[in-house]
Amino acid sequence: MPEDNVIFVGNKPVMNYVLAAVTQFNEGAKEVTIKARGRAISRAVDTAEVVRHRFLTDVEIDRIQISTEELASEKGEKINVSSIEIFLKRPRAATD
Amino acid sequence: MPEDNVIFVGNKPVMNYVLAAVTQFNEGAKEVTIKARGRAISRAVDTAEVVRHRFLTDVEIDRIQISTEELASEKGEKINVSSIEIFLKRPRAATD
Repeated sequence: MPEDNVIFVGNKPVMNYVLAAVTQFNEGAKEVTIKARGRAISRAVDTAEVVRHRFLTDVEIDRIQISTEELASEKGEKINVSSIEIFLKRPRAATD
Repeated sequence: MPEDNVIFVGNKPVMNYVLAAVTQFNEGAKEVTIKARGRAISRAVDTAEVVRHRFLTDVEIDRIQISTEELASEKGEKINVSSIEIFLKRPRAATD
């Protein structure tokens, strides 16, 4: 999967990320990955749910992974931050 | 799985939920489910990560589900809230 099918969810409104995902699927992507860290994780889940329930009802959740990343804080200390990756897939349309 | 193996993550510190999960595993549970809604989703992911990386390294993530729940707001309007369920399992110890 090319890296441009990955959407990094941050602090913008959920709909920004929803539209990014929908656009990628509508441009032909079969898989789109939604990633987030820390408090943005909830927004990543919102993004996936809105994409598949409100916009592209044929999109499915392929799998979900959670992990821990070690980051440097502003003071230079190491801090652990949880992250999530939600792998969405769109089954090939019958007319492809 | 009995319902008492479910931990609902809310607004308390992560370590509260971590200790609840660790306690259930140490009392013999083979599976513990961590659930959360809305902004507590990030804390549920933190809980699962801390349990398996810092306390019980034999605990694995069995699967993760996300869904949307319809709730009534304080004004009586219906609002959609994302939720997560993280299913943790502890493989049976060789000495069981």
